[in-house]
Amino acid sequence: MRKQTMYKWAAAVAVLGLLIFMVTCGKNGEQAGQTTASGDVQSVAEARGLNPADLVAAAKTYVPTGQHDEYVMFGSGGHSGQVLVIGVPSMRLLKVIGVFTPEPWQGWGYSKETRAILKAGNPAGKELNWGDTHHPALSETEGDYDGEYLFINDKANARVAVVDLKDFETKQIIKNPISLSDHGGTFVTPNTEWVIEGGQYAMPLNGEYASLDEYKEKYRGMITFWKFDREKGRIVTDESFALELPPYWQDLSDAGKLVSDGWIFLNSFNTELSTGGVEEGNPPFEAGASQRDMDYLHVINLEKAVELYEAGKTTKVGGFDLLSLETLTEEGVLNFVPEPKSPHGVDVTPDGNFLVISGKLDPHVTVYNFTKIKEAIENENFETRDEYGVPVINFDAVVETQIEVGLGPLHTQFDPNGFAYTSLFLESAVARWTLGEEWSDKHGKEPWSLVDKISVHYNVGHLAAAEGDNVNPDGKYLVSLNKWSVDRFTNVGPLLPQNFQLIDISDTKGNMQLLYDMPIGIGEPHYAQIIKADKLKGWDVYPEIGWSPGKQAKDANGIQPGQEQVKRSGKNVEIWMSAIRSHYTPERVNVKKGDHVTWHITNVERAKDATHGFGLPYYNYNLSIEPGETQTVEFVADKAGVFPFYCTEFCSALHLEMAGYFLVQP
Amino acid sequence: MRKQTMYKWAAAVAVLGLLIFMVTCGKNGEQAGQTTASGDVQSVAEARGLNPADLVAAAKTYVPTGQHDEYVMFGSGGHSGQVLVIGVPSMRLLKVIGVFTPEPWQGWGYSKETRAILKAGNPAGKELNWGDTHHPALSETEGDYDGEYLFINDKANARVAVVDLKDFETKQIIKNPISLSDHGGTFVTPNTEWVIEGGQYAMPLNGEYASLDEYKEKYRGMITFWKFDREKGRIVTDESFALELPPYWQDLSDAGKLVSDGWIFLNSFNTELSTGGVEEGNPPFEAGASQRDMDYLHVINLEKAVELYEAGKTTKVGGFDLLSLETLTEEGVLNFVPEPKSPHGVDVTPDGNFLVISGKLDPHVTVYNFTKIKEAIENENFETRDEYGVPVINFDAVVETQIEVGLGPLHTQFDPNGFAYTSLFLESAVARWTLGEEWSDKHGKEPWSLVDKISVHYNVGHLAAAEGDNVNPDGKYLVSLNKWSVDRFTNVGPLLPQNFQLIDISDTKGNMQLLYDMPIGIGEPHYAQIIKADKLKGWDVYPEIGWSPGKQAKDANGIQPGQEQVKRSGKNVEIWMSAIRSHYTPERVNVKKGDHVTWHITNVERAKDATHGFGLPYYNYNLSIEPGETQTVEFVADKAGVFPFYCTEFCSALHLEMAGYFLVQP
Repeated sequence: MRKQTMYKWAAAVAVLGLLIFMVTCGKNGEQAGQTTASGDVQSVAEARGLNPADLVAAAKTYVPTGQHDEYVMFGSGGHSGQVLVIGVPSMRLLKVIGVFTPEPWQGWGYSKETRAILKAGNPAGKELNWGDTHHPALSETEGDYDGEYLFINDKANARVAVVDLKDFETKQIIKNPISLSDHGGTFVTPNTEWVIEGGQYAMPLNGEYASLDEYKEKYRGMITFWKFDREKGRIVTDESFALELPPYWQDLSDAGKLVSDGWIFLNSFNTELSTGGVEEGNPPFEAGASQRDMDYLHVINLEKAVELYEAGKTTKVGGFDLLSLETLTEEGVLNFVPEPKSPHGVDVTPDGNFLVISGKLDPHVTVYNFTKIKEAIENENFETRDEYGVPVINFDAVVETQIEVGLGPLHTQFDPNGFAYTSLFLESAVARWTLGEEWSDKHGKEPWSLVDKISVHYNVGHLAAAEGDNVNPDGKYLVSLNKWSVDRFTNVGPLLPQNFQLIDISDTKGNMQLLYDMPIGIGEPHYAQIIKADKLKGWDVYPEIGWSPGKQAKDANGIQPGQEQVKRSGKNVEIWMSAIRSHYTPERVNVKKGDHVTWHITNVERAKDATHGFGLPYYNYNLSIEPGETQTVEFVADKAGVFPFYCTEFCSALHLEMAGYFLVQP
Repeated sequence: MRKQTMYKWAAAVAVLGLLIFMVTCGKNGEQAGQTTASGDVQSVAEARGLNPADLVAAAKTYVPTGQHDEYVMFGSGGHSGQVLVIGVPSMRLLKVIGVFTPEPWQGWGYSKETRAILKAGNPAGKELNWGDTHHPALSETEGDYDGEYLFINDKANARVAVVDLKDFETKQIIKNPISLSDHGGTFVTPNTEWVIEGGQYAMPLNGEYASLDEYKEKYRGMITFWKFDREKGRIVTDESFALELPPYWQDLSDAGKLVSDGWIFLNSFNTELSTGGVEEGNPPFEAGASQRDMDYLHVINLEKAVELYEAGKTTKVGGFDLLSLETLTEEGVLNFVPEPKSPHGVDVTPDGNFLVISGKLDPHVTVYNFTKIKEAIENENFETRDEYGVPVINFDAVVETQIEVGLGPLHTQFDPNGFAYTSLFLESAVARWTLGEEWSDKHGKEPWSLVDKISVHYNVGHLAAAEGDNVNPDGKYLVSLNKWSVDRFTNVGPLLPQNFQLIDISDTKGNMQLLYDMPIGIGEPHYAQIIKADKLKGWDVYPEIGWSPGKQAKDANGIQPGQEQVKRSGKNVEIWMSAIRSHYTPERVNVKKGDHVTWHITNVERAKDATHGFGLPYYNYNLSIEPGETQTVEFVADKAGVFPFYCTEFCSALHLEMAGYFLVQP
């Protein structure tokens, strides 16, 4: 290198960069020269056809420039495979986090490091590049969201992912070793010791073929308890285990808290053991699995299960520790409670003492008293055992009450004022009802009674209230996650967005109020959790230059400015490159066809938002390299030619000039 | 099949389905039982810290439930590889359209049909799964958006895609055969006969290796003209051609209109022929490519180029028709106009007679008079020729004026009132200035003068005014596409969203007003166009049951209910399956390991929004099948076992029961 010339240019560039930085960043936080909207609200409202209630709703949701949303909602992205981060009350999409699907804007699944994380979730011999994210779960401390981690499951292939909220990136993907289908995950225990993944469609747990004629004998359900190490920010697979369950289709789950801490609740349907086959004259699944009036809520003594696991009472299936159905029954780990009709949601009240179950085809919610369940188990107050020998607790002994809320109840969330909110799919509405006498001083209404209902548009699935499923719900806001939008938005073709409707639940004397329709044209969001924004402590930039987000530590190949180099050893070429506004060093990379190329790129910026990209044509790479970050791509230069690489993130006025040539000699 | 039993069940299911349909869809369009926000706007404003201007902005952007946005913005998704569809003025993301990156929510890139469309865009021997979308272009009729098609380019690999706005799906992806890099695309001619794709980083057009030492001789720029067949909705590659250009880095382009119809304008930088190599003591690109005071606006006579192409004056490069630089010069197709300094945007005024050029390092916009350019060409009023023999028109002869607008001007849009709007990257602002005397009766101000400026947050790249680059701009709204957000939104980690700021430009006597900040946490949106929503005529559902979106015609494998079947021929198993709320027929699919499976699924629904998914574990498939649509997956059943497939789109109360078993016998 002709170092002096290089430094001369580097100095010139640094001055230019500083100038750009000063000009572009000097105004952060102030409003110099900004002209905001003026005029008369009433005349604007008249011109736009807004009524007084619309204006109030607008005032309740509008967040002016520079102010921030009060809450952040983490929504699953459904079969987009991702996680959506949404500001509340403005209902603005702040970010999409790449989880199960490669996403080039974030460079997710393109670098060596992120590909390895994705690959760890592949079932043997098959690369997966999508997921069906269902239930995001924020990490909790003493039953309250702590803003540190987010977990999410992939229903389509039974996988679980860990997202670190320091940088909002996925750190781990785990394939469930005994199932290809989950649903009742992820949910966490009150101190996030365990991440729950309940199954869905039963199958042989050893992964082998078995005919549907052997359904009862060979197919099984499951629930898996993943041990989470908060220090490492990782699930520890070899400290995790699963329970073998009857081949009912297990569904939603929830962890107990406070009085019910140490217990897990999991409901199920298809206790009929229907196996479909309408084409063979059998009842189709939707009828066959809906014949019985009652299915079974699974009440699991997790503390006891952990004891058995630690005592080595498991068998290995697919290399994974499994507590057999026989052991569970013998040791009293598993009990059933009858639940009506076509059950779906199970939600534990903030005090941990009541379970709210909704049956899709029953207009009531059924409220169970956990204290009574515990007593019934202790007293063996069983009405029968199911055909797998699991005790079925006497329904009447444990039901606190049933409340008629409307058609197609699914899921329930809570507020701090003794109200519960249940989504009504068939009725396209949200019901507000009161919890029992213990909360009377808060809600001041008849206990266990329906007090309000609001229409939503349309077909609500889950709903999410602000911190509405933890021990300290916040109230204020509730989001109805509606599956259909039909006529709500401008036509965008036959595939319509879904509709997240924001509902104001702060008026506890009056009614719920619809505030905002947010189209979701980027997935089928399934469930969401809403956390107070100030609990999140995301990093502005990575802590040090040369950081590996995958390790959350310094990367061995991270470099400081001036340490750039290219090393060749036989057919191996290794490049350590820096990126800064607005150039790569080196700008020219020469290799020979057939060379094995390992290319490390470090963003040596320390300014917030100074992200650089790295797009390389033909070789199919794009990286997003945030300030301080190091990423690596590794490939064989199998095609000779000239490949201009460039920064894909608009980083400065001379961003277009941030480019270089990758030259592959024949 | 035991048909009678099957029909009995089918009838029962139909009744249930009808009930669900009535309950869920009966309320469309009405507001039965809906409670909207009430209360006092002023007290809400006080509680939330909103000032009077904030309230006006809220009133100007809020769209109540059931009402629709007035405009739709199509934004590129940058290196997400997709297109964003956004409602204006609410700034809500209505949909993400999968283009260059596979996207499972839409089933984009998972079915046989959509994979084939993506694959057609692969460079020889390499599968690409991302793109860097840059400039969306709506199809035009007589220079005005007609709402029929959308085109977009991939800068990273030089590709062009066609999206049909009947169903908002990508129909075609074309790899540019002579380059791996583009920028100045896509833009269309006033009747969409041609889709323009201008190059960016020069390279040997034959795709072969050449050292940077031979840059001047062997590297070239290009612009490609893709012929569009509106009837077929496809680009016709063998009626398309390209121009060989000097190895300057061509940049933005625009098509002439009205008086300049038939002409194409393309600017460039790096006329210094800098080849980077800071590590070798050369000037880094950002300095080396910014040394000259003037680069060259390329003025291209498209009509003449087409004549030459049709007369067979092309040579074949990479099998593609190319008009050589020599031919272009000899025949007068290409002329240059000097343009200052580090030029970026070139934008033609609504009347077609002026070109607005912004140089990133020059605080002026330079306005050229097309009539004068034409005269200069006719009179050969050239000041010199460049080193490739291209005539350089006398700058003074064609410049109408220069207006000092501020630091780092980039792009310009227009309104119907004689105002132009230019983004200022370095200043983080948008400048409003007046067009010339011809528009004086509209703007009523000093011609060619800066009249207003508004701060944006931060680092604006492109901007988009309502229909602001066609012959009939609408005014009203302008969106500033800001590259950095820094402090505007809640912290979501080191990778920040960008910020689309909506600006009210309707007050032509007073000032521009900032209305709304929209975070974009899903790509680096580059450019956008805004169309009046009522110009879009998207389908509610596909026209007939058994529709192929890829062909926009009936699919040979589409079926009606009752036509479901499974056929086996040797190791080939072919399945014709129907999907309807809430079951698949058949529900059981039995094959043997090693079978070649071809699986056609038709959504036989006719109700709007009744989309079904199809998720198949391990085999890595997800489809989104809209009402009427048929899609196919094809694979070898290489693993024995039990694979529960299910509907990934929440379609009814018994959606969870919409499942089946794919059984692969060993």
